[in-house]
Amino acid sequence: MSVVVVGSVAFDSVATPFGERERMLGGSATHFSLAASFFTHVRVVGIVGEDFGEEETEVLTRRGIDTEDLERVAGSTFFWRGRYDFDLNTAQTLDTQLNVFAGFQPKLSEGSKAAGALFLGNIQPGLQAAVRAEYGGGGLVGLDSMNLWIDTQRDALLDAIRTVDAVLLNDAEVRSLTGEPNTVRAARKLRELGPRFVVVKRGEYGAALFGEEGFFGMPGYPLETVVDPTGAGDSFAGGFFGYLEGHGDGELSQAVLRRAMAVGSVMASFNVEGFGTERVQALTDADIRQRFNDFKSMMSVESLELASALRSDL
Amino acid sequence: MSVVVVGSVAFDSVATPFGERERMLGGSATHFSLAASFFTHVRVVGIVGEDFGEEETEVLTRRGIDTEDLERVAGSTFFWRGRYDFDLNTAQTLDTQLNVFAGFQPKLSEGSKAAGALFLGNIQPGLQAAVRAEYGGGGLVGLDSMNLWIDTQRDALLDAIRTVDAVLLNDAEVRSLTGEPNTVRAARKLRELGPRFVVVKRGEYGAALFGEEGFFGMPGYPLETVVDPTGAGDSFAGGFFGYLEGHGDGELSQAVLRRAMAVGSVMASFNVEGFGTERVQALTDADIRQRFNDFKSMMSVESLELASALRSDL
Repeated sequence: MSVVVVGSVAFDSVATPFGERERMLGGSATHFSLAASFFTHVRVVGIVGEDFGEEETEVLTRRGIDTEDLERVAGSTFFWRGRYDFDLNTAQTLDTQLNVFAGFQPKLSEGSKAAGALFLGNIQPGLQAAVRAEYGGGGLVGLDSMNLWIDTQRDALLDAIRTVDAVLLNDAEVRSLTGEPNTVRAARKLRELGPRFVVVKRGEYGAALFGEEGFFGMPGYPLETVVDPTGAGDSFAGGFFGYLEGHGDGELSQAVLRRAMAVGSVMASFNVEGFGTERVQALTDADIRQRFNDFKSMMSVESLELASALRSDL
Repeated sequence: MSVVVVGSVAFDSVATPFGERERMLGGSATHFSLAASFFTHVRVVGIVGEDFGEEETEVLTRRGIDTEDLERVAGSTFFWRGRYDFDLNTAQTLDTQLNVFAGFQPKLSEGSKAAGALFLGNIQPGLQAAVRAEYGGGGLVGLDSMNLWIDTQRDALLDAIRTVDAVLLNDAEVRSLTGEPNTVRAARKLRELGPRFVVVKRGEYGAALFGEEGFFGMPGYPLETVVDPTGAGDSFAGGFFGYLEGHGDGELSQAVLRRAMAVGSVMASFNVEGFGTERVQALTDADIRQRFNDFKSMMSVESLELASALRSDL
């Protein structure tokens, strides 16, 4: 089977305290696809311009990603320029040129319509809903978004959320979308719209899962050096969704969801260790396996028994 | 054995979106003591004025807390007034009256000097160092602080930190104290000063332990309703330290430290469910036991095996 992702494919110019890079391959669908490609077959739905060359395409195809639905049109590819300050937490957007992305009307090939899962990356909510309607695979459907759509197309976004199984948003987005500062309540409100579970991404603090079987929380993988956080959330989503599609038991059991969360965190942690996609491009399965096991040991509470710790037990 | 805590004993007037309370019993040593008292015997070192009555003393003594070193002098008890807005994350201080706390010169009785562990709650770093020097118990010594001392008495605080085994600070404090925005590096810098481990408190996001055996991360216990966050960090420290003193194996093994972290989180989660100390005062051992077990299940990754999830395994 495979997972289909719709989203942006872009060129990013990024400056961080660790250096600068011009026109790197980026975009939500790119980061998602690369991360997911380690766990399942990926089909990417997006749009690029004439400046998108063989070199960029090969970054995807080398990882076995199907680019049949990556539309090539006259004009320039979506371009974003941003910078991060010392704390590396929030990006400052210096320039956004939508270019061919402004006229993006995603179309699914027959192969994509029948894929095992669909991930609606961060694009206009109306387009997300259209793609969701076109998808006939009957598999898991997930959705990401951003503050721009929460602020400008809130109702359309809520409508799109009503049609999906899973919502992946960051902490601030969940609060702002629901108008609820408490994330536990905010996640409940989102689940009441329809989704079976909500994943709240918390950056360096990890991620939390709110689902039918309650809450699961996880720290972030601790890193001494974060080089470029761009795409971390998309890599999380790619690892999470790629794992679920490739290896889920169809039941979305807690064990499978927790494993998918850890895979997502591991992929996000690699993403931020290099500029753009460079670290994830160079990843080996052995790297992933080792970090996954390290990460597990860092949050293991198997020996956690209160036992006779209370004074009344003495 | 017992744990000795030195810190503030205060009256707090607090307004949150859930209501207001006037002159509740508060202060770092109070919250710490109550939380720790469920796990070990506690001795509190502090200073109060004539307005501190039987009723307040009994809140402590009812939980078996030894008030021998709680000095009573002429004047008024430390008073703090604050409010929290909708997001309940940051307190806005409306009034601080140090009163008798301004002249606080903590003195340890013979019993306190010989206690099994010492916790230096958030007071002036010079006083923390003096108390630490006076303590002869040879047990674990921990320290908390706040931005006021980081900003105004940084060198004295670093000197105090050099003399302790454990530092418990929140995220922002760790960054600001070390000038290092990355908490992994910041914690390493602090450990290089001497402490065996650093606990970084992350509020609703949980807590992280940086120690000799690496990193342990934990989510926060998820709560739909936070009534009053005042004292959450002190309750965390009380649960953590009380557990370590009462039930540690003396080796500070990972298993013991992780258990102590979970106990700290559980106690902090109770703290914020009521105004001031009201929820913790009313706690039963059964409440603690149940939440501890719930919490464990919310972060358990026992079934976390990557197994044959990578495509190369297929």
